[in-house]
Amino acid sequence: MSAPIRGVVPPVTVPLLDDRSLDLVSYQRQIDRLIDAGVDGLFILGSTGEVAFSTVERRREIIAASVDAIAGRVPCLVGVVDTQTDRVIEHIKTAEEFDIAGVVATAPFYALGGIPQIEQHFRLLRAATELPIYAYDIPVCVHTKLPVDLLISLALDGVLQGVKDSSGDDVAFRYLSLANRRAGKPLSLLTGHEVCVDAAYMAGADGCVPGLGNVDPDAYVRQWRAYQEGDWETVRTEQDRLAELMRVAMVARSATGFGAGVGGFKTALACMGIFATNQMPEPVSRLQGEDVQRVEDILAELGMV
Amino acid sequence: MSAPIRGVVPPVTVPLLDDRSLDLVSYQRQIDRLIDAGVDGLFILGSTGEVAFSTVERRREIIAASVDAIAGRVPCLVGVVDTQTDRVIEHIKTAEEFDIAGVVATAPFYALGGIPQIEQHFRLLRAATELPIYAYDIPVCVHTKLPVDLLISLALDGVLQGVKDSSGDDVAFRYLSLANRRAGKPLSLLTGHEVCVDAAYMAGADGCVPGLGNVDPDAYVRQWRAYQEGDWETVRTEQDRLAELMRVAMVARSATGFGAGVGGFKTALACMGIFATNQMPEPVSRLQGEDVQRVEDILAELGMV
Amino acid sequence: MSAPIRGVVPPVTVPLLDDRSLDLVSYQRQIDRLIDAGVDGLFILGSTGEVAFSTVERRREIIAASVDAIAGRVPCLVGVVDTQTDRVIEHIKTAEEFDIAGVVATAPFYALGGIPQIEQHFRLLRAATELPIYAYDIPVCVHTKLPVDLLISLALDGVLQGVKDSSGDDVAFRYLSLANRRAGKPLSLLTGHEVCVDAAYMAGADGCVPGLGNVDPDAYVRQWRAYQEGDWETVRTEQDRLAELMRVAMVARSATGFGAGVGGFKTALACMGIFATNQMPEPVSRLQGEDVQRVEDILAELGMV
Amino acid sequence: MSAPIRGVVPPVTVPLLDDRSLDLVSYQRQIDRLIDAGVDGLFILGSTGEVAFSTVERRREIIAASVDAIAGRVPCLVGVVDTQTDRVIEHIKTAEEFDIAGVVATAPFYALGGIPQIEQHFRLLRAATELPIYAYDIPVCVHTKLPVDLLISLALDGVLQGVKDSSGDDVAFRYLSLANRRAGKPLSLLTGHEVCVDAAYMAGADGCVPGLGNVDPDAYVRQWRAYQEGDWETVRTEQDRLAELMRVAMVARSATGFGAGVGGFKTALACMGIFATNQMPEPVSRLQGEDVQRVEDILAELGMV
Repeated sequence: MSAPIRGVVPPVTVPLLDDRSLDLVSYQRQIDRLIDAGVDGLFILGSTGEVAFSTVERRREIIAASVDAIAGRVPCLVGVVDTQTDRVIEHIKTAEEFDIAGVVATAPFYALGGIPQIEQHFRLLRAATELPIYAYDIPVCVHTKLPVDLLISLALDGVLQGVKDSSGDDVAFRYLSLANRRAGKPLSLLTGHEVCVDAAYMAGADGCVPGLGNVDPDAYVRQWRAYQEGDWETVRTEQDRLAELMRVAMVARSATGFGAGVGGFKTALACMGIFATNQMPEPVSRLQGEDVQRVEDILAELGMV
Repeated sequence: MSAPIRGVVPPVTVPLLDDRSLDLVSYQRQIDRLIDAGVDGLFILGSTGEVAFSTVERRREIIAASVDAIAGRVPCLVGVVDTQTDRVIEHIKTAEEFDIAGVVATAPFYALGGIPQIEQHFRLLRAATELPIYAYDIPVCVHTKLPVDLLISLALDGVLQGVKDSSGDDVAFRYLSLANRRAGKPLSLLTGHEVCVDAAYMAGADGCVPGLGNVDPDAYVRQWRAYQEGDWETVRTEQDRLAELMRVAMVARSATGFGAGVGGFKTALACMGIFATNQMPEPVSRLQGEDVQRVEDILAELGMV
Repeated sequence: MSAPIRGVVPPVTVPLLDDRSLDLVSYQRQIDRLIDAGVDGLFILGSTGEVAFSTVERRREIIAASVDAIAGRVPCLVGVVDTQTDRVIEHIKTAEEFDIAGVVATAPFYALGGIPQIEQHFRLLRAATELPIYAYDIPVCVHTKLPVDLLISLALDGVLQGVKDSSGDDVAFRYLSLANRRAGKPLSLLTGHEVCVDAAYMAGADGCVPGLGNVDPDAYVRQWRAYQEGDWETVRTEQDRLAELMRVAMVARSATGFGAGVGGFKTALACMGIFATNQMPEPVSRLQGEDVQRVEDILAELGMV
Repeated sequence: MSAPIRGVVPPVTVPLLDDRSLDLVSYQRQIDRLIDAGVDGLFILGSTGEVAFSTVERRREIIAASVDAIAGRVPCLVGVVDTQTDRVIEHIKTAEEFDIAGVVATAPFYALGGIPQIEQHFRLLRAATELPIYAYDIPVCVHTKLPVDLLISLALDGVLQGVKDSSGDDVAFRYLSLANRRAGKPLSLLTGHEVCVDAAYMAGADGCVPGLGNVDPDAYVRQWRAYQEGDWETVRTEQDRLAELMRVAMVARSATGFGAGVGGFKTALACMGIFATNQMPEPVSRLQGEDVQRVEDILAELGMV
């Protein structure tokens, strides 16, 4: 299998035209910008990347456009999020048609299960593909937390090559990191935090997958490089500034959840002239009026526009 | 649109062969049995009907097999459960190829939203089809409760024709029923309870969609008819017995959630000679050993085997 | 021990003067009114009865005032709610100074525990008193659901004499009722529902403890008597009307939780001339302005003022 | 008011004799040990300090014993945790009888409220005392998260002098720290983490209140001093070791929650010869047999015994 991915790996936000078709021009612009900033990889079809909104056909379209735009410059991870095993394997099969570096899969959701089903799920995914598999730990969407012991045991069996931790459970992440080290580092541990990436580096993270990296990839790259050099004051100072910038994903008053968060990122990118629109997938409305102004004010305050 | 469905509408459990392909022979036997018992409709591809485990292709296969087996004898509702609007519409388009009586859709899930997105979601589904739409209120899977006011407003606008209430929130159901009555009964209100169907009838339910109806459809039909005749003591006595029978979905020690519940129904049907196996979809294991014995003991105790 | 309490047992709301001292005149008026309506008992210092807001001294004051006002006409249950065992026993010792019919205790809360601690807690309460003990199952406040098996086992050991079920979990209540019947009915099962009391009667409840019974005790007494006579249509019709009346506890826009619920009851009682004020304990504000008007409108609509 | 407390402030665990009376000899030994290790203050009657298990009289006894044992060497914070305002004020009045440095109060709990009640609660506490007040943010016990905006606004009004953050919500803590800095640092921010104290320091915490500090106060003092000197590698290395040591609070198989956590601390202190017993308050059992062995193994592995 290919080498584990370390460093800054933004989950790429999808630019849409007003009719909600893919805006390939903006997409190329954004991907060039991310790569030029020095990111170490890109994660497409994550929660930020509209995976839950995308049909089988739309997913194929996004993978194709991404691989085309990236053109082999950095490794590409592909989200294969779906409710249960057979559906996830179907997405893996689509992903395998392209030149990608790995797939990222959550625990099963919707139907209620338990740890044995989660274990069996990941083992079946491993049996279905030779691609590296990253476990996507995102209980806010999936409503199960992946246990440290399970992740380590699946890693030692070669089932998992990495974890994208969006659990917000920093205590569990610490124990995952300690256990991973004790096991010989079979897993690449990527934090999904935007606001506490410094804490994840303290805990031993191998990289980050920040949605906010769409807006300011340079800062996350600077932070990562400072971490590599042991310059913790820079790690921390960059983080404080990024926390202020993250308010673009929190200021909307007309929206909550994905609409406020990814809606805030898209609005920032539109304000910055990188995306042509801040259009959102159905049934989510784009931010408008004062919500857009709030995002723009934060960008101005931090010198981003 | 076709007349609203009232009465007993079991969510049909899917029989699988050992290799997890559909067992069409068992399926025909079970559907004949349900219809012969006097059910008023059938609900396929519900949570019980493995909707979350089924790929687009498998869903088509189940709809085709069901419509074929039912042969127009009772109306058929089809679950079109998926994470977000475009994916649900895709399932509706598949369902429209067949002769069915309506579709059943949940609120969006996985990505976090709010009430405005849920409203927009159902309005977009209505714009996409002429089929009756039943809202599927199942917060244990979807993690949002559909508010009474929203349901009534969507009903008055012709967006919704019914609600399948699996919320377990009997207070909210009461208020939904009162509001529906006040609005002129635009909605057919079907409870997803197995154990408190009598309570739902007290509250004014128009019918039930009990997974346990797969095991004992006759009892739910007797209960419904007693309710129609105002014979509350029978309604209640049948319910007490059905509550005892429902323990088939609770006794497994090796499984939880779907594996215990639907696994218990399938195991009961296998014990009763109706299903050839109690096989489950991946990544769920079928019940085995003592868990099967526990199910069988309950069936024996209640004279079902 | 005294006979188990069956029938309508309202949790008595506490009238306060503007300075938040007890309003003994209103209290006597309300208690007389409840007893005249035909209630079968009274429950003081419940969640509705401000137990969580009352110091040790205030609790004693409320018990003394209640026992004095009731004057032995109906049995009186006393809530002894507190975080852990020793504090609860202290409240039991206070209660024992008065002529009461039993105490009502929740599971321990605040500190996290498990089922063994809950069991030990109730066994220690039993060792500390000869009074009948009712388990108060109120997970919305205590954040633990009392399991059916534990309740039955404590009943068979003589630890518990009843359950006040405010869990809202009607499926669990059904199973509790069936298990209690199978065990020879050691427990008196009182539902804390206001809106689904009919459902609880269907399930076999021995009575109800409805906060709304403060506002309309007559209706709950009529409903109970109809249930005793098997007149289910009256049970149901009374319930529908009481559900509409219960909106007094839901219409406040300036308050939530206790402030809206008990605040609504007190406001209704003030509108009806029974309480002198609708004052609330600190840190809760009384309903004012339009919120009061909303309560009054509901009362007017239902002929209560 | 006295100066805000910064640095390491362990929440002191209470040693009990077998009959559950206070073990004053062990208590003096432990308090001397903590102060000798260089802690900056002590927090008594926290969640770890059995506040929820202690009657009014027991609380007084613990405060008296603590103040006596500390003898003015370090400042002493006193937990005044209770369900609602009047009860908390009663505890504040008891605390005021002693020479202490401040009180620590949670949001109201048990009865459901909202943000306005929480604000009113803290304002009433301020009106009742001249002591510094620390807000205790512990949603796992209280089931409400204190919002950043409220905390800052109460700080600017002189209501609050500090926050003890046991929320585990490191994103919110970051924003609290940034907002506090922007407001001129009116609050002393103490993290309740044991395992991610380094992350809290990265975020700008003014100190820590780690239950595990009972077991190894020296390590937390070393970590704090390294932080003061900007030696982040030591901060991190000490944290990794403390995370391993924290397993004493997680290894019990016969207990969960408080019983496992504080039970683990007490067992460790008993193994280390500092506490005479590992006795727990009713209704919690002390750890026994293999659970004790598991704790001892961790201590041995880390050179603590």
